[in-house]
Amino acid sequence: MMGLRFDDKGLIPAVIQDEVSGDVLTLCYMNEEALRKTIDTGKVHVWRRSKGKLMMKGETSGCVQFVKKVLVDCENNSLLVKVDQVGVACHTGEETCYYRELKKGRIS
Amino acid sequence: MMGLRFDDKGLIPAVIQDEVSGDVLTLCYMNEEALRKTIDTGKVHVWRRSKGKLMMKGETSGCVQFVKKVLVDCENNSLLVKVDQVGVACHTGEETCYYRELKKGRIS
Repeated sequence: MMGLRFDDKGLIPAVIQDEVSGDVLTLCYMNEEALRKTIDTGKVHVWRRSKGKLMMKGETSGCVQFVKKVLVDCENNSLLVKVDQVGVACHTGEETCYYRELKKGRIS
Repeated sequence: MMGLRFDDKGLIPAVIQDEVSGDVLTLCYMNEEALRKTIDTGKVHVWRRSKGKLMMKGETSGCVQFVKKVLVDCENNSLLVKVDQVGVACHTGEETCYYRELKKGRIS
């Protein structure tokens, strides 16, 4: 038993990484059901906080993320999911959600 | 201005990735001050939730993370920090905090 520590909203953050390129694609949140579905189906499922519902990544876009490996951090309170990404990860059409660089003096 | 969205506790999650190996090292949290110090000093600073204080990564262990690049996600609510890691990232002595794999049936 891994004794995962979900937060006070019942969520655990999951870093999604492209297994081949090593690119960090996005950070998402899973509740226990989303994590179970992710593991059982082999496709990333997330709790969309803005919509307040469970969704499969790529459910509408077709950009499914096939799970290759799920890792747990040393404190049992975050996950790293290595995936095979169909299409692109970001809803903007970019390959990863992290496509903008933060420069000095541009924090807020 | 990036219009970063800190959460209701004033924190933003930051994925820390080794710039050379591509390994995801850890997930940490920054408040605005930690982010400013990270950018101004070029060394990762975090808000340690368990201790309730701001710390420089490696402050006690010497395992400093030198910042190479700070990226913002498409929703302005998470960061990806690419670093040059001195020593190891995890307090257990492992290179990354994600050194254990989650297998089917071992969720909770």
